[in-house]
Amino acid sequence: MHLDQATPEQLRQWEADLASEYQALKAQALNLDLTRGKPSSEQLSLSDALDGLLNGSYISADGTDVRNYGGLEGIQEARQLGADILGVDAARVLAGGNSSLTMMFQAVLVGYQFGYQGAESAWKNLKAPKFLCPVPGYDRHFSVCEQLGIEMITVPMTATGPDMDKVEAMIKADEQIIGMWCVPKYSNPTGVVYSDETVERMAGLGKIANPAFRVFWDNAYAVHDLKQPAPQLASIMAACVRQGTEDSVLQFASTSKITHAGAGIAFMAGSETNLAAFKQVLGITTIGPDKVNQLRHMKLLPNMESLSAHMAKHAAIVAPRFACVLENLEQAFANTDLGRWEKPQGGYFISFDTQPGCANAVIRMAAEAGVKLTPAGATYPYGNDPADCNIRLAPTVPSVADVDRAMKVFCVCVKLASVRARLS
Amino acid sequence: MHLDQATPEQLRQWEADLASEYQALKAQALNLDLTRGKPSSEQLSLSDALDGLLNGSYISADGTDVRNYGGLEGIQEARQLGADILGVDAARVLAGGNSSLTMMFQAVLVGYQFGYQGAESAWKNLKAPKFLCPVPGYDRHFSVCEQLGIEMITVPMTATGPDMDKVEAMIKADEQIIGMWCVPKYSNPTGVVYSDETVERMAGLGKIANPAFRVFWDNAYAVHDLKQPAPQLASIMAACVRQGTEDSVLQFASTSKITHAGAGIAFMAGSETNLAAFKQVLGITTIGPDKVNQLRHMKLLPNMESLSAHMAKHAAIVAPRFACVLENLEQAFANTDLGRWEKPQGGYFISFDTQPGCANAVIRMAAEAGVKLTPAGATYPYGNDPADCNIRLAPTVPSVADVDRAMKVFCVCVKLASVRARLS
Repeated sequence: MHLDQATPEQLRQWEADLASEYQALKAQALNLDLTRGKPSSEQLSLSDALDGLLNGSYISADGTDVRNYGGLEGIQEARQLGADILGVDAARVLAGGNSSLTMMFQAVLVGYQFGYQGAESAWKNLKAPKFLCPVPGYDRHFSVCEQLGIEMITVPMTATGPDMDKVEAMIKADEQIIGMWCVPKYSNPTGVVYSDETVERMAGLGKIANPAFRVFWDNAYAVHDLKQPAPQLASIMAACVRQGTEDSVLQFASTSKITHAGAGIAFMAGSETNLAAFKQVLGITTIGPDKVNQLRHMKLLPNMESLSAHMAKHAAIVAPRFACVLENLEQAFANTDLGRWEKPQGGYFISFDTQPGCANAVIRMAAEAGVKLTPAGATYPYGNDPADCNIRLAPTVPSVADVDRAMKVFCVCVKLASVRARLS
Repeated sequence: MHLDQATPEQLRQWEADLASEYQALKAQALNLDLTRGKPSSEQLSLSDALDGLLNGSYISADGTDVRNYGGLEGIQEARQLGADILGVDAARVLAGGNSSLTMMFQAVLVGYQFGYQGAESAWKNLKAPKFLCPVPGYDRHFSVCEQLGIEMITVPMTATGPDMDKVEAMIKADEQIIGMWCVPKYSNPTGVVYSDETVERMAGLGKIANPAFRVFWDNAYAVHDLKQPAPQLASIMAACVRQGTEDSVLQFASTSKITHAGAGIAFMAGSETNLAAFKQVLGITTIGPDKVNQLRHMKLLPNMESLSAHMAKHAAIVAPRFACVLENLEQAFANTDLGRWEKPQGGYFISFDTQPGCANAVIRMAAEAGVKLTPAGATYPYGNDPADCNIRLAPTVPSVADVDRAMKVFCVCVKLASVRARLS
């Protein structure tokens, strides 16, 4: 199907055929859901041994009784795991509670309200503090900015990461830009891994930006590979050291999609200056993280070797679901102009771009046929996808058979919505 | 010893005797610590069964898989426990992570930055937002205000709670007062339980204060009784309902000093309006609390009956330590004018007021004799105890024998510092 080359007669015929195909699918009364970017029960069960692992021994490697108060930075062995995941020194890592989103919110709050380099560096002092937001992106990142009244400017994602020419030009032109969101590996939702050049240029932004500028490097899928050998993400902190811009990047990760999604450990890494400012505020808001849960995690995943073996089990569950989505897309759209997508080798999402103006229609039609998709616009700041084209597919929770059923519906909806848009 | 009635000769003789007694104590080279308001290892061990209680069953009462994301309000059975502790309806309770301090910070942040009744009600819009702080009080409460630049005004504690005549007069006179900290039961550090009249008058503040005014009712020691029958704290929410001021109070509690101090559950309770505003912000900062840990706690403490039985075991450990402190104070100061104290029937602290101008000297002298005490001023906003008289004693961690040794040193230091102050 090539709409650009189709005659009106062809389009009308396609519309009729697809409409009848759609009606047949609708008659199945499906009840499927491709919205949930979370692990399936089968994945969660991989970590069920967590409960009971401590055997009454609540002492961490350095002799700390993890049951009591204290230890703002987290236990040493958990910080080491975070350091290994993020590729930095353990002294530059904090191990926290169950939510990296909470750490990211706090990190933005520190920048906005208190300042990483003294009170006068707080973003709230600026006339109109702004974040760059690669799109499509992660809605919960955008919500943090919106909550604090930080303006968001979009920048397009490419197959190698954000469009760095645009990023650099914007930052040079506007010193009110004081932050940027990034999911550098298996980006949410496009699944792209930032290229080495992109990472190097991201690390260089600290040289041209407002000194208060911080990259929020949310490495949520650092170890969530579906195949080996997996794509390697270059170390942004190594690049920052080379360029003298260590203060310009804050990194985040968590075990949420490694162990139990709601009961894991979050990590944050940053320069000495950044961590000092962050800890000053953190120490006001808490006496310390749940160190018992940190120790429990370290019994399950004592090192990167055990972590890799654990992630291979996740991959064995998730990979067939990703393959199913990609096969369906390939089969339906390989030789058409109806849509574009990347082929992620990890992470939790596949992102599909319809022709402009079709995403809302596809999502509505799929819903009417019993297939729930993430609302259109969710991957854009303020929920506004100006081209109305991006749809985020999250295939981890349903069974492979259900993913296949849902994708059949999805593909017909894309075709029908595209043809109807052309006809109208 | 009555300094007021003593002759200069008597004072000099006391000084000489006490100085020699102090030197003898110093020679013991003690290493004791009465600063730590946290449970002892023996207390923590009461809850060691927490790890392994789930037996592979991760489903809460309503069928939720607690391992996964979600459930911003906490699991229903944990909310019920919080409701029982705070004496409110479970629908008005959130069960959170491991830190009620974090919830209190967030609750202050909501009031300051976002507003409980719309953005225009945010305290940051005021010229000089102020909190009333009963003194002596809890330093971490004061730090939250200081961090956000909220001015703190002290109000004296009495044996029945804050001096309510002063509180009401200040609030009537200044509409920039938009908050007040309270630890209503076994107050930190005086150990006082607010009287029924105090609770009723606290609930009435909402009728005379700025509509943005909120009482932060930190019921940290709600079930931490040392003797039965224990003093009963009246229900502030019941009083608020009677007076139509439900929006004026936010309540907090936690299991931190019930189970494992650093790995418990925090609770917050409030009106529908207050919880809606809080949850809007909470939902930006996290996907949900650690529900696995909540379920684990509910297996250990399924209801108030089991909670009471559990707290009786804590009391059996803590009560002898409190008794030891009080016996030493009684013996040393019962018929003197050297100090005043309450006799707490629960909580974690005993608070001692020296004669004006002596606290710093006592703490320094005790430190030189190997007994660490909480720094003078710590119980006052900005670390400033204008009369230099309050000392917080925290006896839960050392053994009874060590508490006794430390108190012997303390009492001699108080006497010696008092006599010297009179002589100088």
